[in-house]
Amino acid sequence: MTDTRIPVAILGATGAVGQTFIRCLRAHPWFRIAELGASERSVGKRYAEAAHWLEGDLDPDVAAIVVAPCDPTRVTSPVIFCGLDAATASEVEPAFARAGRFVFSNAKTFRMDADVPLMIPEVNADHMALIARQRRERGWSGAIVTNANCSSTTAAVAMAPLHERFGIKTAFAATLQAVSGAGYPGVASLDILGNIIPYIGEEEPKIEREIQKMLGKVSGEAIAPAAFVVSAHANRVPVEHGHTVCLSLGFEDAPTPEQAIKVLAEWRGAPAVRGLPFAPEPPIRVRSEPDRPQPRRDVMEGRGMTTVVGRVRADTVLDLRLVAMSHNTIRGAAGGSILNAELMVSTGEIPRRPS
Amino acid sequence: MTDTRIPVAILGATGAVGQTFIRCLRAHPWFRIAELGASERSVGKRYAEAAHWLEGDLDPDVAAIVVAPCDPTRVTSPVIFCGLDAATASEVEPAFARAGRFVFSNAKTFRMDADVPLMIPEVNADHMALIARQRRERGWSGAIVTNANCSSTTAAVAMAPLHERFGIKTAFAATLQAVSGAGYPGVASLDILGNIIPYIGEEEPKIEREIQKMLGKVSGEAIAPAAFVVSAHANRVPVEHGHTVCLSLGFEDAPTPEQAIKVLAEWRGAPAVRGLPFAPEPPIRVRSEPDRPQPRRDVMEGRGMTTVVGRVRADTVLDLRLVAMSHNTIRGAAGGSILNAELMVSTGEIPRRPS
Amino acid sequence: MTDTRIPVAILGATGAVGQTFIRCLRAHPWFRIAELGASERSVGKRYAEAAHWLEGDLDPDVAAIVVAPCDPTRVTSPVIFCGLDAATASEVEPAFARAGRFVFSNAKTFRMDADVPLMIPEVNADHMALIARQRRERGWSGAIVTNANCSSTTAAVAMAPLHERFGIKTAFAATLQAVSGAGYPGVASLDILGNIIPYIGEEEPKIEREIQKMLGKVSGEAIAPAAFVVSAHANRVPVEHGHTVCLSLGFEDAPTPEQAIKVLAEWRGAPAVRGLPFAPEPPIRVRSEPDRPQPRRDVMEGRGMTTVVGRVRADTVLDLRLVAMSHNTIRGAAGGSILNAELMVSTGEIPRRPS
Amino acid sequence: MTDTRIPVAILGATGAVGQTFIRCLRAHPWFRIAELGASERSVGKRYAEAAHWLEGDLDPDVAAIVVAPCDPTRVTSPVIFCGLDAATASEVEPAFARAGRFVFSNAKTFRMDADVPLMIPEVNADHMALIARQRRERGWSGAIVTNANCSSTTAAVAMAPLHERFGIKTAFAATLQAVSGAGYPGVASLDILGNIIPYIGEEEPKIEREIQKMLGKVSGEAIAPAAFVVSAHANRVPVEHGHTVCLSLGFEDAPTPEQAIKVLAEWRGAPAVRGLPFAPEPPIRVRSEPDRPQPRRDVMEGRGMTTVVGRVRADTVLDLRLVAMSHNTIRGAAGGSILNAELMVSTGEIPRRPS
Repeated sequence: MTDTRIPVAILGATGAVGQTFIRCLRAHPWFRIAELGASERSVGKRYAEAAHWLEGDLDPDVAAIVVAPCDPTRVTSPVIFCGLDAATASEVEPAFARAGRFVFSNAKTFRMDADVPLMIPEVNADHMALIARQRRERGWSGAIVTNANCSSTTAAVAMAPLHERFGIKTAFAATLQAVSGAGYPGVASLDILGNIIPYIGEEEPKIEREIQKMLGKVSGEAIAPAAFVVSAHANRVPVEHGHTVCLSLGFEDAPTPEQAIKVLAEWRGAPAVRGLPFAPEPPIRVRSEPDRPQPRRDVMEGRGMTTVVGRVRADTVLDLRLVAMSHNTIRGAAGGSILNAELMVSTGEIPRRPS
Repeated sequence: MTDTRIPVAILGATGAVGQTFIRCLRAHPWFRIAELGASERSVGKRYAEAAHWLEGDLDPDVAAIVVAPCDPTRVTSPVIFCGLDAATASEVEPAFARAGRFVFSNAKTFRMDADVPLMIPEVNADHMALIARQRRERGWSGAIVTNANCSSTTAAVAMAPLHERFGIKTAFAATLQAVSGAGYPGVASLDILGNIIPYIGEEEPKIEREIQKMLGKVSGEAIAPAAFVVSAHANRVPVEHGHTVCLSLGFEDAPTPEQAIKVLAEWRGAPAVRGLPFAPEPPIRVRSEPDRPQPRRDVMEGRGMTTVVGRVRADTVLDLRLVAMSHNTIRGAAGGSILNAELMVSTGEIPRRPS
Repeated sequence: MTDTRIPVAILGATGAVGQTFIRCLRAHPWFRIAELGASERSVGKRYAEAAHWLEGDLDPDVAAIVVAPCDPTRVTSPVIFCGLDAATASEVEPAFARAGRFVFSNAKTFRMDADVPLMIPEVNADHMALIARQRRERGWSGAIVTNANCSSTTAAVAMAPLHERFGIKTAFAATLQAVSGAGYPGVASLDILGNIIPYIGEEEPKIEREIQKMLGKVSGEAIAPAAFVVSAHANRVPVEHGHTVCLSLGFEDAPTPEQAIKVLAEWRGAPAVRGLPFAPEPPIRVRSEPDRPQPRRDVMEGRGMTTVVGRVRADTVLDLRLVAMSHNTIRGAAGGSILNAELMVSTGEIPRRPS
Repeated sequence: MTDTRIPVAILGATGAVGQTFIRCLRAHPWFRIAELGASERSVGKRYAEAAHWLEGDLDPDVAAIVVAPCDPTRVTSPVIFCGLDAATASEVEPAFARAGRFVFSNAKTFRMDADVPLMIPEVNADHMALIARQRRERGWSGAIVTNANCSSTTAAVAMAPLHERFGIKTAFAATLQAVSGAGYPGVASLDILGNIIPYIGEEEPKIEREIQKMLGKVSGEAIAPAAFVVSAHANRVPVEHGHTVCLSLGFEDAPTPEQAIKVLAEWRGAPAVRGLPFAPEPPIRVRSEPDRPQPRRDVMEGRGMTTVVGRVRADTVLDLRLVAMSHNTIRGAAGGSILNAELMVSTGEIPRRPS
């Protein structure tokens, strides 16, 4: 029996996000891991030797793949999942897009470009409209679609239904971010054991801008960023996976906590996304216990794709307070990219293979 | 040679705060641990047998003290340091005050009473003015002086010089609080290892109200609470000691970050406090590294009495953002009570012993 | 459609082991949770209110069960899974056995009794022979079958195939035990964050005796304990789940590391156990990486029922060294009890229900 | 007033051991930090810019030192404290010794050489006798004196008095080692949070051999290694500082636990060491609580130079079991080197400066 799934390549395959792509794509119904790309020192090795595998068992088929260089003449899959850092991504991703590939990026490089979608499909599936402009303006036959920073994603999903319905004007976001957000080896244990670090380089401005773009409105082939202002405080905490965000929100038309809970719990996101293999159902779970969400206990909700929200209550300064948490390397990185790619397959943007 | 130091009793001596009192009072120049009080099941035992000692070495003199009941007829010291929980404190503390003792409380019970000072001496030494009223109205020959909740204290010290000079109007406070704030055994390891808990029971309203009172102005024998509004998000993190608070602040007369840093770094607090044995010099240390303060690395600054401030920067929504951190069981509990007592000795409120 | 599964009760249902029983029995093909028993203060409450639920989602059917007292006149299921502590178990378990129930105990109380099986089915399924004697001597129509201490179980599974084939004479066992082994709330976070505790009360003698009994030979209706001697060092470490045991072993007929690896990897355990719903296949997984097993990464191997072994190498003093790790509340407690019960169902000792 | 202290250089000054040297030498009565050496990328920078400072405050005098290359023509101090890794040490340390310097090494490179002392002064001050041979055979005017691996040191100090008095024949050592033993950044937090790693590269053979050499007897200018055999199991645990070693010991002339405790508690080590600035008094502290030593609570005993021993009890296989713990970067590295240097100053091997 022929495997008619779409062959995909993972670039930056040995890193933490790359490994998460490999775990998430195990037995994916539409995509098949065909190629793995990484930096010079891994090229030519079998993946099992090149990577320090961090979690779970490595599929023997994947273990045996010989690592290729991140070069579109050597990696031929039509769909490219990217876990490269910003420096490398700024060279490699355009090269693949130019060569006709659909590149799903996790780097910051292109996120804020006016013709590049910064997508969370449930929230802004219509931002795909930028792709036509991107191709036309850049003369590319492929395209780059980006994912937000992992903590921006956690906040943006929780804010989306409330913004849609009540109009957010102001947001305070204090994050407690897991160490896996810094990649591997990432945060040294001597820095974080029994400690917290109230700073993550460049994180706060990213959160402040990316949420505005993600919750912005498409008009023609442009995005008008959401008009609210965000103030972020980013903290690193000794947690393996799961970014927690404490939010205080001010609205045009302030909801009661009960109204907010109802809107959050009933929200299903863009219709185009429902039923996609990686789409969590529902996208947001609202918990009623006073002390949830908690990263260690809730991070795998919806196989790591659900955003868990709790402590929805009145604020003393703005209107509403709540806590949101989601998996930073699944929902906030690899799983998010896969859902973006699924959306583009389902809309026909990425062609299925003849069966 | 006679020991002319003032004899003090520690109530709740076996608990986490009680133990911190014992550690902090080792070799204190003015106070001598004369008595230890605790609950029924400890009474009559030597302290070394009654307590599960948590940190450092226990002084043999203290180890040998036989634990007394928390009863003013059985505990006779004029100065009473209290680490009792709210339920017990609400009975025991008034009994001691009625019996002429100066009670330094760490419970929430009396903090918000109009005639009870909620003191951080550097910030509000003049709140001592409430004591005369307290005695008169309650008919007590002693008095109760309270300490704030530990996370309120961290925020209040950092806010005090800025409020004094620029007038705070609004504050967002997201806390990352150490497990020792919950006492012993307190937080179960199964709840907090590799996890954070975005909730601490009753903590947020305490923070919101106590800071207003502490930064309030005395007028006659009453406190007018500070007019600003505080919104708090309280989180528990897997840190041993040290509460970190992320603050966003709005002002009447907004300072630049540089102006704020100068005011914080130069602040010395109420003159009456300078030179007291437990007064940190200076009360606030401003660090310039981008990633400080950190609890594990900075918590013992000024022997646990200094509030360490960092990341003073502009805010996108309000005017200023910063991070403050201090030791929750020293500055925020036992050490704070001791400094309160020292102030009252230095002002003659508590009589020194004839030498 | 009628549910023909055997109704079971869980006693000590609110505790850590009780909760693990509930999680493990979700969708079990042979057993159905019919009743939950706990102490006085939970009796009469719905389970969801009585328990502080620690991990994953609680099944709504179970959440709604009203907690019963641990009394055989009030709890009527034929199969009783017990997570009670030793003090309570010593009263309750015999009462249920006398009343004709099959009691699967996790307490130390009866483990070393000459007529009570201490079972790991793959290792000593034939120890079931004690049950006839137990019933006869005690005049019970039911029976008590016990599980070993969780760290004894980890070591015993790893030692069993080697003892069977090469004859162990001497064993050193240094354990690194997870906090969940102490139940909930169990180990205080102030005791274990960034720390290790080189002591667990009564643990070392249990390990030393229980392994001898479990690896002992049945002769008639008695167990001759294995003749080897064990020396144990028990340590608590800040790990959620998974006990790790460093073993040095001396043999009658010393294997090379390669021979030992082959025997461990090929071992399938008692034939009677194969194919039972909770039987891991294989019971032992041997890993070849130099730095495995690791509890956080390997603890869920075989849904928490597999013992993971690594670092099999020559010893400088005895013959062989290795590291074994397994899940202390699944393999070492609830899951182990369930497998014991499954074995007794499959052998007809526990009657299936008429369908 | 002239500073007549001996100028010293620290090589590998930016690393974890180098930083510990800087902290330990603050206000040392005999040594003054005159120079700091590090690798190319730090050379020419002020130390404060070159180093990521990990713990406590950096002395402004030290912060201002311009980092030099690790070259004896550029670093001129007579005493060289070395925190270099083995690869660099194997080139650099002989170059300094050849140039007449006293090099105190923490690398494994020369430890096992027949003419190089592997010293813990309390244990084997007489091993200094190797230095004359080293100079003669190598034609050096300086010398290399080495420190043991940090976990070897913990075990060796605890074993020394027992070996001296009762003759150790066999030892099992299972270690639980802190992350600071791996330097900085060292162990990735993703590897060790909520986890243990039952493996440390090359550690076990080092422990097995180094203890034999350290507890060996000098005869003329050679060391006869102690005749006992050691079996080591090395584990990494999520602890900041402090290596814990579980020991089972067999003796020529087995002591009772009481006899062993008495010998350990009364031991004062080599007379030549007493009263040296870094000599802990006493070298070993025996604790009687059942659950001590614990690294977080006991690691700073004797300013990090004391070895804390507890749980001295009979063994079931050999004769005696105990737990030993000491500070791996102070006692086991920087502090140990400083004590070695102090010994050589006090014996006149290193000349004092004319005052």
